[in-house]
Amino acid sequence: MTREERYEHGLKVLREIDGEAGQKVVDSLADISPELGNQVVSWAFGDIYARPGLPPRDRQLVTLGMLTALGGCEPQLEVHINAALNVGLSPAEIVEALLHSAVYCGMPRALNATFVAKKVFAERDLLPVVT
Amino acid sequence: MTREERYEHGLKVLREIDGEAGQKVVDSLADISPELGNQVVSWAFGDIYARPGLPPRDRQLVTLGMLTALGGCEPQLEVHINAALNVGLSPAEIVEALLHSAVYCGMPRALNATFVAKKVFAERDLLPVVT
Amino acid sequence: MTREERYEHGLKVLREIDGEAGQKVVDSLADISPELGNQVVSWAFGDIYARPGLPPRDRQLVTLGMLTALGGCEPQLEVHINAALNVGLSPAEIVEALLHSAVYCGMPRALNATFVAKKVFAERDLLPVVT
Amino acid sequence: MTREERYEHGLKVLREIDGEAGQKVVDSLADISPELGNQVVSWAFGDIYARPGLPPRDRQLVTLGMLTALGGCEPQLEVHINAALNVGLSPAEIVEALLHSAVYCGMPRALNATFVAKKVFAERDLLPVVT
Amino acid sequence: MTREERYEHGLKVLREIDGEAGQKVVDSLADISPELGNQVVSWAFGDIYARPGLPPRDRQLVTLGMLTALGGCEPQLEVHINAALNVGLSPAEIVEALLHSAVYCGMPRALNATFVAKKVFAERDLLPVVT
Amino acid sequence: MTREERYEHGLKVLREIDGEAGQKVVDSLADISPELGNQVVSWAFGDIYARPGLPPRDRQLVTLGMLTALGGCEPQLEVHINAALNVGLSPAEIVEALLHSAVYCGMPRALNATFVAKKVFAERDLLPVVT
Repeated sequence: MTREERYEHGLKVLREIDGEAGQKVVDSLADISPELGNQVVSWAFGDIYARPGLPPRDRQLVTLGMLTALGGCEPQLEVHINAALNVGLSPAEIVEALLHSAVYCGMPRALNATFVAKKVFAERDLLPVVT
Repeated sequence: MTREERYEHGLKVLREIDGEAGQKVVDSLADISPELGNQVVSWAFGDIYARPGLPPRDRQLVTLGMLTALGGCEPQLEVHINAALNVGLSPAEIVEALLHSAVYCGMPRALNATFVAKKVFAERDLLPVVT
Repeated sequence: MTREERYEHGLKVLREIDGEAGQKVVDSLADISPELGNQVVSWAFGDIYARPGLPPRDRQLVTLGMLTALGGCEPQLEVHINAALNVGLSPAEIVEALLHSAVYCGMPRALNATFVAKKVFAERDLLPVVT
Repeated sequence: MTREERYEHGLKVLREIDGEAGQKVVDSLADISPELGNQVVSWAFGDIYARPGLPPRDRQLVTLGMLTALGGCEPQLEVHINAALNVGLSPAEIVEALLHSAVYCGMPRALNATFVAKKVFAERDLLPVVT
Repeated sequence: MTREERYEHGLKVLREIDGEAGQKVVDSLADISPELGNQVVSWAFGDIYARPGLPPRDRQLVTLGMLTALGGCEPQLEVHINAALNVGLSPAEIVEALLHSAVYCGMPRALNATFVAKKVFAERDLLPVVT
Repeated sequence: MTREERYEHGLKVLREIDGEAGQKVVDSLADISPELGNQVVSWAFGDIYARPGLPPRDRQLVTLGMLTALGGCEPQLEVHINAALNVGLSPAEIVEALLHSAVYCGMPRALNATFVAKKVFAERDLLPVVT
């Protein structure tokens, strides 16, 4: 695969999972670090996300756990809560995953992530969440 | 104790320590994750904070240390610097605890937490802090 | 539900998911912090894990993501990689989830978690992992 | 104050709080980074710990919170759980502070810190802890 | 050296490296924690930065790595990306260092730091970065 | 470039920088996650490390900063303190970089990293470090 083909392949996977939000991140890197944008597309999505060993819904569950635990990743949580909805997780499942995170990361991380979910769900007219 | 009694008990403790700020966090969870609000109240405050083994002032010292170290917990620091004042820590003691944090967490975490204290103290008309 | 019933319920869930490893952690807390053991059982497993909103396999995917991201949680990763196997994740899926973690946590966290998986899989005679 | 006086002053404070354990850390730095040892003594203990604004018992409560939250600081937790005992915190209070940490840092950090306490208390013949 | 001389020395180093931004941080601490400001100046810059063992450019490379890895240190990253430019790192070298950070900290930390660089470079009219 | 050429290229860079230690990490992944080993080689070293925009010595300064800040990365610090020596950083410069880290990460992270350096320098007969 050429460098261009690898990029195109990654971009297709990125769009399927992250939708417009992923493309916007890559675009906003164009004048500061196009190579970081290239690595997000070609490596993260083209090489890793595209692998068949774990379906997209499972990858987003792992990703929500990681971003919640890391802290300070609210912009990425916003992208990936959208992505989680895009790949088939329901609002109630996402909220439950973030409640679960309180056990391992503590209340502050769980609260911060849940308020990002509230913002995303409000934008997509998904509130209130019925569990 | 029934589930309702546990919640009422936790809410009483939450109000004594966090005041209005704690109630606001719980209220803002109502349409996204009422169960997370329930766990903050019933578990964190009803089960853990309410235990007699460590007085409220000591719990806030530990809590300030943890929130400063975790990073990215500015909203929770705001609540708990208020809580620290509510349970009897003086502004000078809080500032000293955050200075102490520089030894273990480094300057950036100590600075970020101190600027949250500045915001809280300004709102409560407690500036300048005289040490 | 009484305190005892809540504990018994949590213990049942803990055993289903973590098996003997979870029980060992609780036992080793008996002389230092029996209440922490009680909270692991009654709260983490009885209240949170037992909720029907997210199946056990999904909870372990979120948990593997969090423990990998937190760092320094090798003992808990060992318990939960075992738990992941117990609830139906295959060795190849676990390995893929940890590969995926490199995108969000970086190579050191992904490597450390993968070497814990190697230890667990060796003990359960699951090596080599075929993907 | 000369550099030597500042060091002697810090060493006195270090010994009062950390006891032999603190001295050992400084000694083990002698052939690799004597200046880091000097900064631990002169700055951390001489400049910060020695300040009168927060008593030693309060400083250890903050410190236990920070070291638990940071993760991967088991060697420092060992020193500071000893220090906490040295400055008047009871085993039961230390254990309660670490239970409290579960609310903010999650169960893995609380467990890891509690097992360090178990090691220290065993060495000082303080088990079982009666709460 | 007197306390005043130590402070003046540190202030000189701070201004050489951080420029106005460092002074602003110290000024904004005046009414909340002047001692934290004093420690930033006298200890961090006067004692540590001023040491001859590592040139300023090298110190900023280490610092960019730490601030990116810690997360939640966007205000400090802003100061230190400015500082990195002040001590001779080119925009392209800074961007490359942050791309490199993706390997060790993962994409979210690398992205967050790179967007701080974009803000700083825009203010200093250094966009687009040509690599 | 074919997948095989990309791997061979990365392996060459890995060996130049990490020496035998890097190869050992990759080898130990063979039966658990050969793809993670492939990504370390082909992506981290072949794609990122190999870029000309930042020389190897600079990359190790950034890397030491990140690994110290992350915490819990002692195995990776061991590899990269060796790598730092391999690419031309002197023991005294490495020790100074880790002293510098105390300002941003606090004493525990600085101490843990310095004790890893002590282990590596002892193995390479580089103690005591003369500054």
